[in-house]
Amino acid sequence: MERYLQIIEEAIRSNAWKREPNGLYEPIEYVLSLGGKRIRPCLTLMACNLFSNDLTDAVTAGLALEVFHNFTLLHDDVMDKADTRRGYPTVHKRWNENTAILSGDAMLVEAYRILSGIKSPKFTEVLDLFTKTADEVCKGQQYDMEFETRDDVSLDEYMEMIRLKTAVLLAASLKIGAILGGATDSQAQLLYDFGIYVGLGFQLRDDYLDSFGDPVIFGKKIGGDILCGKKTFLLLTAKELAHDKTLDTLNNLLSLEDKKDNQKKIDGIIEIYKVLGVNNRCEEACLTLNNKAVQCIKKLQLPDNKSILFTDFANKMVNRKK
Amino acid sequence: MERYLQIIEEAIRSNAWKREPNGLYEPIEYVLSLGGKRIRPCLTLMACNLFSNDLTDAVTAGLALEVFHNFTLLHDDVMDKADTRRGYPTVHKRWNENTAILSGDAMLVEAYRILSGIKSPKFTEVLDLFTKTADEVCKGQQYDMEFETRDDVSLDEYMEMIRLKTAVLLAASLKIGAILGGATDSQAQLLYDFGIYVGLGFQLRDDYLDSFGDPVIFGKKIGGDILCGKKTFLLLTAKELAHDKTLDTLNNLLSLEDKKDNQKKIDGIIEIYKVLGVNNRCEEACLTLNNKAVQCIKKLQLPDNKSILFTDFANKMVNRKK
Repeated sequence: MERYLQIIEEAIRSNAWKREPNGLYEPIEYVLSLGGKRIRPCLTLMACNLFSNDLTDAVTAGLALEVFHNFTLLHDDVMDKADTRRGYPTVHKRWNENTAILSGDAMLVEAYRILSGIKSPKFTEVLDLFTKTADEVCKGQQYDMEFETRDDVSLDEYMEMIRLKTAVLLAASLKIGAILGGATDSQAQLLYDFGIYVGLGFQLRDDYLDSFGDPVIFGKKIGGDILCGKKTFLLLTAKELAHDKTLDTLNNLLSLEDKKDNQKKIDGIIEIYKVLGVNNRCEEACLTLNNKAVQCIKKLQLPDNKSILFTDFANKMVNRKK
Repeated sequence: MERYLQIIEEAIRSNAWKREPNGLYEPIEYVLSLGGKRIRPCLTLMACNLFSNDLTDAVTAGLALEVFHNFTLLHDDVMDKADTRRGYPTVHKRWNENTAILSGDAMLVEAYRILSGIKSPKFTEVLDLFTKTADEVCKGQQYDMEFETRDDVSLDEYMEMIRLKTAVLLAASLKIGAILGGATDSQAQLLYDFGIYVGLGFQLRDDYLDSFGDPVIFGKKIGGDILCGKKTFLLLTAKELAHDKTLDTLNNLLSLEDKKDNQKKIDGIIEIYKVLGVNNRCEEACLTLNNKAVQCIKKLQLPDNKSILFTDFANKMVNRKK
């Protein structure tokens, strides 16, 4: 894993970012220099390496996927009016909104430019999956924004939103690596499905930790999602389970908007989650997704030393403490 | 030409725009339904038809180019805070800014999705030119925005900006059609160059008409560019030619910002343009570009009935009255 990360970091560094006009490309280099775990390109290399020792095209595809992912962060931050990303000012804060829009556009084009460097005869198959996935990620972001102002979001709709917004890109990163490594269709599809389960589990774990994480390990304040009224797995499950007095209490707590009521709101809603057993349901859902992910890997019948890379990864994503 | 336009309109109509989430795709359909002259896809069909009677792939490429062009308009309108486009509210006015950003992103992805429908073995060549052009258009928009706050823009820089922002997409539309029709490299390049000259001429003509058009035929108020301080061919040439008292007068007029001075500013600057002969220089530049465009077509040694389509088009773009 460490070796894959090094390969990716080197690929990011050696791409030609210093181009004119500086005002267009510097923000792109900036976004990519802020780090991140490079999960998607690492998955591409991991998947490719299951079937081939030649990682050249997988590095190209991985770089394109990482650039695409960072493009979505850049534009999402504009739409969400986020001031910081990974502890640094977002592009629209450090430069301005127009720069963030246009550099983002150039970044999406750059992702396609990089992807087109793939030499494999599988290129068009990879390109089509990349484009389908990019479209799905846009859909996911659209649903996410629409959910903010809707009060009738169902748990199924939420799962579909996080599948589109988060899981499909992880899944595509794996499948693209597999395709380039020479996997069969069914092997590539098993890795795709693995990515979907891990992606969904990752997001549910995120929802869980926001209310039930250990604040010391988690490193963030508990209850952020509750205060910003986010429709998470926890809240949507609570709404489906709560009746009568509990539902009234939940709705009353949700309607609190005064800052001085913040702690009361967080504590009250977490208490309801516990009473309804929403925390347990979320943990169970994570466990189920993790198991499904592991099943996909088992079906691939890999040697143990290769299997473990993937099952470890699933575990890290879905059972993480922070 | 009329036949090409019909084919394109039919291709736009029959693409699947009605997709979920509606909030993401409806703005895309809206932008494309506002009309426009469909110049780029028509050029693709015209160029392809010089070499082949099978227009299938050219229609696909033309549609992708038209979707891309409208994507740039959508995002440019956000950046320019434009309220209307073709007489209708812009997407960020009719919906909101986030919708305009995200639907624009989805539109760029959609352009690539459509383009990937090309069946020709020339697909990767077309894809690479499309991506290179998309990158150049972003650069052009970046320079255009930077020029707004710069006072030292040279005429050469301006020509390079309009080449990137306007001309390369016309040129690429022609070249892509030519490639798909089976043109040789040099034939495809001549059509590309033709597109560059016409694109530059089109923009200079635009600059000219804003100050020297017949307001009745032009259909817009004269002097719009002058009032918004746009660095046009006229202004930049005037700045290069003016000295001493004329330069002082020009700078004084440029510094007028009070609305009541609007007409004085327009009249004064147009008078200076006339004194310096800037209007004639602009007309000469248009003529030269038109001639260069025609030379490219001559070198193609087409039968007269085919040549005339292109020379007529150049004439219409570069010598138009409105």
